[in-house]
This record gives sequence, C-alpha cells and structure tokens, in this order.
Amino acid sequence: MITPNPAPAASMIPYGAPIDLDTAKRVAAAAGKEADANGWPVVIAIVDSGDNLVLLHRHDLAQLGSIAIAKAKASTAVKMKRATKLLDEGVSKGGAGLRVLALDGVVPMEGGLPLMQGGRIIGAIGVSGVTSPQDGETAAAGAAALNS
Amino acid sequence: MITPNPAPAASMIPYGAPIDLDTAKRVAAAAGKEADANGWPVVIAIVDSGDNLVLLHRHDLAQLGSIAIAKAKASTAVKMKRATKLLDEGVSKGGAGLRVLALDGVVPMEGGLPLMQGGRIIGAIGVSGVTSPQDGETAAAGAAALNS
Amino acid sequence: MITPNPAPAASMIPYGAPIDLDTAKRVAAAAGKEADANGWPVVIAIVDSGDNLVLLHRHDLAQLGSIAIAKAKASTAVKMKRATKLLDEGVSKGGAGLRVLALDGVVPMEGGLPLMQGGRIIGAIGVSGVTSPQDGETAAAGAAALNS
Amino acid sequence: MITPNPAPAASMIPYGAPIDLDTAKRVAAAAGKEADANGWPVVIAIVDSGDNLVLLHRHDLAQLGSIAIAKAKASTAVKMKRATKLLDEGVSKGGAGLRVLALDGVVPMEGGLPLMQGGRIIGAIGVSGVTSPQDGETAAAGAAALNS
Repeated sequence: MITPNPAPAASMIPYGAPIDLDTAKRVAAAAGKEADANGWPVVIAIVDSGDNLVLLHRHDLAQLGSIAIAKAKASTAVKMKRATKLLDEGVSKGGAGLRVLALDGVVPMEGGLPLMQGGRIIGAIGVSGVTSPQDGETAAAGAAALNS
Repeated sequence: MITPNPAPAASMIPYGAPIDLDTAKRVAAAAGKEADANGWPVVIAIVDSGDNLVLLHRHDLAQLGSIAIAKAKASTAVKMKRATKLLDEGVSKGGAGLRVLALDGVVPMEGGLPLMQGGRIIGAIGVSGVTSPQDGETAAAGAAALNS
Repeated sequence: MITPNPAPAASMIPYGAPIDLDTAKRVAAAAGKEADANGWPVVIAIVDSGDNLVLLHRHDLAQLGSIAIAKAKASTAVKMKRATKLLDEGVSKGGAGLRVLALDGVVPMEGGLPLMQGGRIIGAIGVSGVTSPQDGETAAAGAAALNS
Repeated sequence: MITPNPAPAASMIPYGAPIDLDTAKRVAAAAGKEADANGWPVVIAIVDSGDNLVLLHRHDLAQLGSIAIAKAKASTAVKMKRATKLLDEGVSKGGAGLRVLALDGVVPMEGGLPLMQGGRIIGAIGVSGVTSPQDGETAAAGAAALNS
C-alpha cells in the first residue's frame, strides 16, 4: 500500500482562460480607487494566465522602480499560483525560505495576488509603490472587484 | 566665416515634464476607440519623457508579441525624438537607412509617435498588433486626443 | 471612521526636471575631489530624474566592476527615491530586508544618493570603487555641492 | 614559395595602455566645444583600450537614444580597431557590407573613432545626437585634441 503524498493544494489549481482587458480595467480601477483614497502612489500591473502583460497603470508620483516591481509581483503570483505574501513570509523567516531568492523573476514581496474565477487562475495583479502591506491591501481591493 | 551646419530640427526639440496617468488614459482611450472601430486587436503603450512606462493596455485577441513591440515603438519614438515611421521609411529605402537595424531597442516600424505639448516631448505612444500603417493610424488617433 | 495609514514619506517626494550637464559636472567634481583627497579610486555616475545617464567618470585605478555598480547605485537611488544605504542596512539586518535581493537592477549598497533641488528629485549620484562607507562619503560630498 | 597574404593593416595595430581620465576629459572637452559651437546636442562617450567606459557626458537637449548609441560607437571603434565610418560606408554600399548588421554591439554609424597614441590604440570616442557626419566631425575634434 502506497502512503498518500499529495501535492500542495496550490499546485492543483488549474489555469483558466486569460483575463480580458475590460475585466483587467475593472480590477485596476478598484485597486486604484483604494490607493487614491489612501494617498498611496502606486503602479498596478495585471498579467493573464499565460504571464503576459494585459494592463499597467503608473499613478503620478509613484517611484520609477515600482514599474518593474509591480510587473514582477503579478508575474510571480501567476507563475507560482499563490499570493506573493506567502513567499514574503518565507524569506522573512529565513532558512529554506531564502531559497526563492535564487529564482530569476520571482519577487517575494507582498502585493501580488492570483486572480481567480470559477476556481481557475485567469491572471494576477501586482502592486508596488508604498509599504508591502499597503501594496497588498491595494491588490486585494482589486482582486475583490473581480467577482463583485 | 563659418558655414552654418545646423542640427536636424528634431534634435532641438526639448523634453518636457512627464505625461501624467490621466492624460495617458485619455490618449489610450482615443487610440483604443479608433482600433475598436476598425476591429483591430492592438497593444497600446505609453511612456513618459524619460522613457519610463506609464500605461499599457493589451486588447483582447492581440498577438502576444505586440506587448514588447508596442513598448519598443513608444520607447523608440521618445528616445529618437521622432515618429518611428521615419526610421521605417529609412529601412525600406535601404542603403544608409539600414544602419538603424544595428541599434538595440530601436524599432524602425510605423506606430510610434512622440506626444507633444507646448512644443515639448512629454512622452510617446506605441501601437502594435495589425499592419504598420494601421498601427500608425491608431497611434495618430491617440496623439490627436492630447491637445483636443 | 478610517484609521489613517499614510504612505512612507519617501514615496511622496516628487520627481523634478532632469539635472543638466553643468550641474552634474559640478556634483561629480565635488565627489571626485573628495575621492582624490583620500586616495580612493572610484567611478562616479549621475543619472537624471528619469533614470537616464547624464555623466560617468571612471578615475584611474578604479576596478572595472565599479562602472556598472556606480551606475546601478545611482539608478537604484532615483528609482527607489532613497539613499541606497537604507536598503544596505535592510539587507544587513536580515529577515524581510533580504527581499530586495530578488529585485533586478536594485543594488542595496551604500553609495547611491538622490539629488534633491527645491524638494524634488532631479537625479541621483552613484559611487563605487572602495568600501561602501567610503563610496557613501564620496557620494555625499557630491550631493552637498548641489545646493552650495 | 608562399604567396604573401598579409592581414589587413588595421588588424595589426596594437592596443596600448588604457586612456586615463584626465586625457579623456581633455578629449571630451574638445569634442564638446565643437558641438557647442555648432549648436549640436550630443552625447560623448569614451572607452579605454579594453572597451570599458571611462567617461560619458550627455549634453542638455540630446535625445535619450544617443546615450546607448554614443557608447556603442566608441565600443565599435575600439573593438574593430577602426573608424565606424568605414562600417557605415560598408552598410550603405550593401552586399557583403550588410553582414555587420548581424553583430551584436557593433554599430556601423559614423561618429566612432579609435584614439591613438604612439601608434597604439588607447581607447575610442563615440558621439551621437545629430547627423552622422556632424557626429563624426565632433568625434574628430575630440580625437585631434589627444596629441595637441
């Protein structure tokens, strides 16, 4: 008898059809509204389920470095099928969690979230510009708009 | 007496303050409207006067390769202070015009236009997805919205 | 009632007009004088507010690797709107501070400083060649000349 | 008896010790003076005999694309031991001259010149910003200052 040794749950989430531009605009608008309400200058990036950029909006005042970071957070969330906050916590804990620093294009910073629809990943949102928790709150506001 | 040998007019155009997000959205909306009216699936990219991305919208159906091409056309227009169509024609004519093929990050294809305000370059729009003249028409519709 | 959750102060600093060459030369001269007085062979790089190179001087004897590092420190300072020393300290402390090691083109080493004028970031200086504190002292001497 | 089949003369020119910063500044000053006298906004780059950047000055108004092009012209001149004008003419003629377009980092545009001292290549100057002949005239003014 084989001992069951299931894959991590996240690994089993299927990719769905790519998010379309109208939906991406709706997600970005909700995220942008949250950022503006708080006075947070951010960059918002949305990639589809194939890790290809669909939308990027750089708010005025946002630091230039956040263009690449927002894109990388979205990319990390869709490529790793998980919130970047999980990798963020892994690095902060040290030890084995540090291994992700060896991965090109994987950014372990809160602010990247998979966008789910019908149990499938249709893309991801990445936000950068303020503190990581503020970036994360902004991304969450965007993701929440997806199914509202 | 020195024979005057003036710089090309384009070289003397100054860069201005970077385009802001609201203006970029207005330009992208005008370009997107033109593309949609014609049934052209395109990617629209807008960079500021320092060649940093401000906005990217990928319309549904657009070929994935156009994400990088739209960005590169916008980048080329702002970096070379000219419509990419001029480089496009240069390559088509052959001879010395072919030299730009050696330049990394310079894309000699119609569809990239500087965005001008008050005689200064505040950014550039790049469009890719259909034929180069169609890309160019879409970019022009966006640029026209800037001062309307 | 909403609990205020303000953005970090650094995030709110606006970018200004790009530093001009004469000013960059003045900054580099002050930094170079400090380096020479100490016998420090360094590379000095200055980028503008759009992260485009304005000036680079490699002093004799400076290690070749410092060409890219000086440029990257200046780039990091302008893109992240902060002294690279802050990222340097973050990495040294470990934990969450290590996350910046995942970011391409972000160099968390002392020696990069934003150049401010009238409350705006007009560019940044990056110095590399000796120890990080010595690089930082050299960069500071350059930045100090900006408003003298 | 072997038929003599000598290497191209340019191939036999030896590389010398790398140009120092003071000399590079003198070359750049002479080139910059020529450009300013004509009202030409240019970028001037100087590499040493090992193709490593020693100096870069971007004049105000110069198009951003010229930062990389000036550097590439200097690099091409030192790597190929010849004036980039020779490659420029080759491309313009077509045929076999076009082959250089396949080479990464080789820019066949007038404006790059080896810097010679005592029969040896100590570095190269690259200029970009205006027309290729104007770039070339600026570079020549810089190179002329080397032995004056």
